Amino acid sequence: SKLSHQDITTTNDQVLLLETNLDDTTGQQLAAVIKQSLEVGAKDAWAEPIVMKKGRPAYKLSLLVSPQKKELFVKFIFENTPAIGLRLQLMQREIMERRIEIAKTAYGEVRVKKLSYHGITKFSLENDDLRHCVQGTKENLEKIKYAVLQEIENNKNEGE
Amino acid sequence: SKLSHQDITTTNDQVLLLETNLDDTTGQQLAAVIKQSLEVGAKDAWAEPIVMKKGRPAYKLSLLVSPQKKELFVKFIFENTPAIGLRLQLMQREIMERRIEIAKTAYGEVRVKKLSYHGITKFSLENDDLRHCVQGTKENLEKIKYAVLQEIENNKNEGE
Amino acid sequence: SKLSHQDITTTNDQVLLLETNLDDTTGQQLAAVIKQSLEVGAKDAWAEPIVMKKGRPAYKLSLLVSPQKKELFVKFIFENTPAIGLRLQLMQREIMERRIEIAKTAYGEVRVKKLSYHGITKFSLENDDLRHCVQGTKENLEKIKYAVLQEIENNKNEGE
Amino acid sequence: SKLSHQDITTTNDQVLLLETNLDDTTGQQLAAVIKQSLEVGAKDAWAEPIVMKKGRPAYKLSLLVSPQKKELFVKFIFENTPAIGLRLQLMQREIMERRIEIAKTAYGEVRVKKLSYHGITKFSLENDDLRHCVQGTKENLEKIKYAVLQEIENNKNEGE
Amino acid sequence: SKLSHQDITTTNDQVLLLETNLDDTTGQQLAAVIKQSLEVGAKDAWAEPIVMKKGRPAYKLSLLVSPQKKELFVKFIFENTPAIGLRLQLMQREIMERRIEIAKTAYGEVRVKKLSYHGITKFSLENDDLRHCVQGTKENLEKIKYAVLQEIENNKNEGE
Amino acid sequence: SKLSHQDITTTNDQVLLLETNLDDTTGQQLAAVIKQSLEVGAKDAWAEPIVMKKGRPAYKLSLLVSPQKKELFVKFIFENTPAIGLRLQLMQREIMERRIEIAKTAYGEVRVKKLSYHGITKFSLENDDLRHCVQGTKENLEKIKYAVLQEIENNKNEGE
Ligand code: NI
Ligand code: NI
Ligand code: NI
Ligand code: NI
Ligand code: NI
Ligand code: NI
Ligand code: NI
Ligand code: NI
Ligand code: NI
Ligand code: NI
Ligand code: NI
Ligand code: NI
Repeated sequence: SKLSHQDITTTNDQVLLLETNLDDTTGQQLAAVIKQSLEVGAKDAWAEPIVMKKGRPAYKLSLLVSPQKKELFVKFIFENTPAIGLRLQLMQREIMERRIEIAKTAYGEVRVKKLSYHGITKFSLENDDLRHCVQGTKENLEKIKYAVLQEIENNKNEGE
Repeated sequence: SKLSHQDITTTNDQVLLLETNLDDTTGQQLAAVIKQSLEVGAKDAWAEPIVMKKGRPAYKLSLLVSPQKKELFVKFIFENTPAIGLRLQLMQREIMERRIEIAKTAYGEVRVKKLSYHGITKFSLENDDLRHCVQGTKENLEKIKYAVLQEIENNKNEGE
Repeated sequence: SKLSHQDITTTNDQVLLLETNLDDTTGQQLAAVIKQSLEVGAKDAWAEPIVMKKGRPAYKLSLLVSPQKKELFVKFIFENTPAIGLRLQLMQREIMERRIEIAKTAYGEVRVKKLSYHGITKFSLENDDLRHCVQGTKENLEKIKYAVLQEIENNKNEGE
Repeated sequence: SKLSHQDITTTNDQVLLLETNLDDTTGQQLAAVIKQSLEVGAKDAWAEPIVMKKGRPAYKLSLLVSPQKKELFVKFIFENTPAIGLRLQLMQREIMERRIEIAKTAYGEVRVKKLSYHGITKFSLENDDLRHCVQGTKENLEKIKYAVLQEIENNKNEGE
Repeated sequence: SKLSHQDITTTNDQVLLLETNLDDTTGQQLAAVIKQSLEVGAKDAWAEPIVMKKGRPAYKLSLLVSPQKKELFVKFIFENTPAIGLRLQLMQREIMERRIEIAKTAYGEVRVKKLSYHGITKFSLENDDLRHCVQGTKENLEKIKYAVLQEIENNKNEGE
Repeated sequence: SKLSHQDITTTNDQVLLLETNLDDTTGQQLAAVIKQSLEVGAKDAWAEPIVMKKGRPAYKLSLLVSPQKKELFVKFIFENTPAIGLRLQLMQREIMERRIEIAKTAYGEVRVKKLSYHGITKFSLENDDLRHCVQGTKENLEKIKYAVLQEIENNKNEGE
């Protein structure tokens, strides 16, 4: 329901985007900074190719972080890249509610991420688990997927 | 004038940007989603190559929509892509005032988009019409363009 | 300290981002617009490859300007590109405090940009000056860099 | 077997790559040229973002054509783009052998592309047909896929 | 004719492409290398965004040079970038024949590049000259273009 | 000398480039394929953003492999991606000769990659070792680099 949903996502309603254009760092360093930013708590991190002033083939680094961690990540960028300035943007975020369930099939157990948002629902089967089942039973992937989906179907009567 | 201009563009003053980073969709699906989003009313839609976490060559999908249609397009993205989260940003928009006129030349009619913004003006000749004139008269494109521009010049006395 | 820092950066706290997607301009024109925008006072300007509607390989042009110059740069884009609309976004900006010092070494003088932000500090040696020293003395670049850094170290006692 | 395979793919063994860097065309024109090149017989066509000399954000256009059509496509590029030069490269091509089969299931018929290359095999189910079955029977997509794969399995005894 | 054409383009028939993937250089350096390579005689130079191994957002540098200058440019890349290896490819090149003519109009002189290739012809008007005419006469650009094209038309009787 | 150099690089003189345009794979899969290709012996692997036919935002996958492993890697691509065709190109490769030396400094040992090509030489200091020295001695990175370079200088008398 909408109310319970809002309770759950309240703390995620806002994210802070940090951006900086880098024409004085290397690809090696960029990859390291993206990795490290996630280790210290960024929600997401990525790089976009851009053409900067003076015709420089460069990258824009973007971090998505909790607004409470603004100070932490501004410092993170200044300490781990040559940037001397960056831009910040508070953005709203919508996320689907997630519930993990276990589908027990004849081929093994597969985690299913059940996603919902205001009446829309979708599933996402855990890839690792599917591969496990394939390896353990030498069965066809599609067959296993189908068994998982049948299991989900059977459980539907028990409500969301 | 500024006042009449603001009347015209009031409803366009704000647009909502929806963004999501996708490392689990294909190029085929992305192209389909961009096309479909425009069919259901997005003002614009595009994809940007990005390098996501874990070194994934991915794309960021961006939709520009009317703020009133927020709910519609959040659902659209969740239903039509594997995204389980997205970012939203209310942005201001400035657009040039558009007026379509018909320039009647010896070679045929050509629609002219007259664009203006606070004293700046520019024209944009309808490509399809120009090609029509070229095909119909076997005349040089530049010659036809020039005739159109003369027609615009002549009409100027009749005011904006 | 935070206070003195805020005094210095107050006027820079906000920047305005102007964006427009261009599928009807050429690379030549884009490079010219980026260059020209900086000449008339943009803080930064760049282009990002995007895939626009109807599968068009295009570029998004971004300008970062002082919020006071909004009108100037909206007109700049409308006058210098085929854009008939653009998006605006007020963004917060954090910048490191900069102080230029001269390091006098046996190989020549080198400007050093001292950067600081809430307790973090870093240096940036002026490349042109380093090259000058290399050319004047035929000495190794690393040796000269080291001399500069020793000079910085010596001056530290004199406080920030 | 290798021999019979080579008989089949002999005419496809070589393809000609045509490339040209374009900083004086628009995204609209590029999309049109890609589309048109396929209509006049190119095997493939695409554009890659590049940063050209003088810092120009541009695109490289690539066409893949039959070597016999070299003259046709060199002219095609010169006539349909502002290019005044282009590069050509004869490349070898390996393609998987394709055989289309029809899987008749309880939900409808689905075309299956059977692909093989020197002992490797894979399948590709025709998306349009799967959607047809989903629409006609309101059944789950995975269930239909599974039925198709069972059908393929059953037919295997009849050999390649 | 084909023969006379081949005489003219013989020396251009082949070009050498040098490529290297760079994840340890900066955008500043890339822009400098592209510029410098042209100054020492490269026919063309550009950079393409790529995603390298270990998820590194990087660039591929490409130089197009005369095959006779292979040694020069292999050394150029090794000396001016961190590359420790590069790839080379001899490519065929087709270029349109160029002839510069001067169109004398009432608004000033405009250089016209006449391009031809096996029966195809196109023109390219010198931008700088057009702008000169606009500035000198305050006339409309399209009007001047049209005058130039009329001049070209008149001269056609005098043969290619 | 040229002769001894050629002896050393003979086996590296040629590399095989495999390329395929993918509009039906995901970023997750692309990253996995790049990683796996290197594990099974590719010399290099990368992805380039491209705009494919029908306006699809896609990626071109490139592998660089030993020509002897052509069959292995053609199969690798067909088995690990949805590709049903790929292009191959034999390319020449030039690589700098590498010799690893150990520079013993007061701060610790640092491996130095000495690179040479037909009279050109450059160095590359092992980053991991430098960081080790910084951590072990709390000394300035530039100071350690300088010590390494002095050590290299001292050893020069002993010939290449
Ligand atoms: Ni809810
Ligand atoms: Ni909600
Ligand atoms: Ni107005
Ligand atoms: Ni207004
Ligand atoms: Ni972007
Ligand atoms: Ni501060
Ligand atoms: Ni075969
Ligand atoms: Ni074969
Ligand atoms: Ni000819
Ligand atoms: Ni010819
Ligand atoms: Ni050699
Ligand atoms: Ni490329």
